[in-house]
Amino acid sequence: MKKVLAINSGSSSFKYKLFAIPEEQVLAEGMADRVGITGSSFEIELANGEKHSEEVAIPDQETAVNLLLKALKEYKVIEDLNEIVGIGHRIVAGGEDFTDSALIDRDKLQKIYDLKEYAPLHNPAQGKGIEAFMKLLPDVPEVGVFDTSFHQTLDPVHYMYSIPYKYYEKYGIRKYGAHGTSVRYIVGRAAEMLGKDAKDLKLVVCHLGSGASVTAVKGGKSYDTSMGFTPIAGVTMGTRSGDVDPSVLQYIMNKEKIDINQMIEILNDKSGLLGISEISSDMRDLENNASQKADLARDIFVNRVRQYVGAYIVEMEGVDAIVFTAGVGEHDAGVREKVMKSFEFMGLKPDLEANQTNGEKFVSKADSQIKAMIIPTDEELMIERDVVRLAHLN
Amino acid sequence: MKKVLAINSGSSSFKYKLFAIPEEQVLAEGMADRVGITGSSFEIELANGEKHSEEVAIPDQETAVNLLLKALKEYKVIEDLNEIVGIGHRIVAGGEDFTDSALIDRDKLQKIYDLKEYAPLHNPAQGKGIEAFMKLLPDVPEVGVFDTSFHQTLDPVHYMYSIPYKYYEKYGIRKYGAHGTSVRYIVGRAAEMLGKDAKDLKLVVCHLGSGASVTAVKGGKSYDTSMGFTPIAGVTMGTRSGDVDPSVLQYIMNKEKIDINQMIEILNDKSGLLGISEISSDMRDLENNASQKADLARDIFVNRVRQYVGAYIVEMEGVDAIVFTAGVGEHDAGVREKVMKSFEFMGLKPDLEANQTNGEKFVSKADSQIKAMIIPTDEELMIERDVVRLAHLN
Repeated sequence: MKKVLAINSGSSSFKYKLFAIPEEQVLAEGMADRVGITGSSFEIELANGEKHSEEVAIPDQETAVNLLLKALKEYKVIEDLNEIVGIGHRIVAGGEDFTDSALIDRDKLQKIYDLKEYAPLHNPAQGKGIEAFMKLLPDVPEVGVFDTSFHQTLDPVHYMYSIPYKYYEKYGIRKYGAHGTSVRYIVGRAAEMLGKDAKDLKLVVCHLGSGASVTAVKGGKSYDTSMGFTPIAGVTMGTRSGDVDPSVLQYIMNKEKIDINQMIEILNDKSGLLGISEISSDMRDLENNASQKADLARDIFVNRVRQYVGAYIVEMEGVDAIVFTAGVGEHDAGVREKVMKSFEFMGLKPDLEANQTNGEKFVSKADSQIKAMIIPTDEELMIERDVVRLAHLN
Repeated sequence: MKKVLAINSGSSSFKYKLFAIPEEQVLAEGMADRVGITGSSFEIELANGEKHSEEVAIPDQETAVNLLLKALKEYKVIEDLNEIVGIGHRIVAGGEDFTDSALIDRDKLQKIYDLKEYAPLHNPAQGKGIEAFMKLLPDVPEVGVFDTSFHQTLDPVHYMYSIPYKYYEKYGIRKYGAHGTSVRYIVGRAAEMLGKDAKDLKLVVCHLGSGASVTAVKGGKSYDTSMGFTPIAGVTMGTRSGDVDPSVLQYIMNKEKIDINQMIEILNDKSGLLGISEISSDMRDLENNASQKADLARDIFVNRVRQYVGAYIVEMEGVDAIVFTAGVGEHDAGVREKVMKSFEFMGLKPDLEANQTNGEKFVSKADSQIKAMIIPTDEELMIERDVVRLAHLN
């Protein structure tokens, strides 16, 4: 039986999922945690629900890959390594070089490393993951799946900032967006559920997790998206600020005598829901610990999502469906309800009963002019499919 | 005959208008230019169109006021200084202290100076203007008219940033907005033209000048506005960037080895239409010098206005009218047409013939569900009216 591995590495985490192809069945999944840090561990969950984990030193990506391959054999998920016929890797930054997922050779690997300026913590770790497999499974094709590539269809009107043009020419400063793999999956499912070709649809996809973005998708292509040069921009997130008046940075930096890197760290790690509420970056905690600031954080989150959805509907001059996905989008009925209600005046009729529970479904009424849907996202499945497509495994 | 002076000082300019009350007739207007800089000049234009100007050293606001009072007598606009019964001053930053225009005594003047952190170039110059009149016309009531006060009706959901809450508590960092005096004037006129009470209206006011903002006005009150902690935020402007991913600042600063104050200077003075087009900050120049970058600048400007108008319509869950004002809004038919066309799908029917010419009028068709209007703004008239109201001159 042929298998494809989907790898989703962060800066210090290494998540994986093993798929049987062409069945797209998940045979095993898990992660190596705290790679390159003390206290690292490895875990695997088998298709039957059996879980194994061990605390073990994982100094680098190669060790993580070795542990994974060993575990797959040890727990009899595979008998022979040559059952693995393709490997896909999520890569955070693809710049303007990668307009689609791509088979990765040494040259393309170098490009991924070169793009590290746009994702200093992620691209190097993800590149090392690719390199580890090149060494350990040299004959297996590897595919890079970029968070940014889906958004390469944006028009300059939407991706250029209103700053001196030379900064785009010198440094490639523009909107790249993120969550592209998730949005691409959602668009496919939404088209299926709506019984239409994606080419004929205008969608707004609200990927609302601890990182959150709103994307306008017109004719199946990304048309505009709320994340920017980096994932800090756009709507309020768990710990990220989203959009802020640039002068706010100046004022705080001058007052607190901190530099821009410290300031951006605050906007990345201590802002968003956590910063406003002073309680937690997690929507569930805010709901369970009602306070004025917790309520304000929730309301601000909803407001910023609303604003972007509204702006993007106007940009596309209409919308067929608004889709909710990722942690908050899939599980927070309150947020969904509040966002949907803002669009009643435009013809969206929320189905508040359907909205009370989660799972893939319509949460608007049958006669709603604008549809609303929950679609649980599946980035790993998208990675697996890109491997199959680009390595010609079908 | 009683007269009221409306003063609109910038950091180095001192504009004035003298009104007869209660007729609201302009008797003289003009400015002292380059106050405190070499090459300064004073000019006055009389009601009959007669103009006088002279190059003269104007080291400070007091000299400007003295020149003004002298000219008013010299050109027989007034016979005696006691005809001036009230003076109004535009003030840029009113913080949370000034929720309306206010009679200014020594204490309030001190508050205006204290707020200089929010408008370092403007509040001190404007404070000195008030002080000069206190000295030269000590018995005449003076009124401060704040750019920010109209926006003090915003809800925390709209004025708070998604950053650590303590920065609001420590430094008052929040959205203050600007152009409030202009928007307040527009709302009054729009209600008159629509034949309704402002309380029953939802309006979006596009104040599009070299500084540009979009304001949602619900029930006569500012509901949300695109400028932020400072006027740098929001839509693309002549030389200001509007919204930018905060990480862009970090990237440029680290690469170019510049500090945050230099960076904000770039975002204030070298960005916006000028930065993108590399030609000019003036829409007319961009239209007359077609190039790819000039077209891009215009398109980005229109797009950002569109986005905010769309977001605000959704926030208010509907809109009765979209109003265009200020330099570009009053005179650029192309910009108005492109913005209006984005809302056709919502029921706005642009009257493209009416839109070809300028002046106060409707630019939507009679049966348009959403109205569109041009209303030339008049901040000085608003200042004059606030003086009359607060100094009880009627």
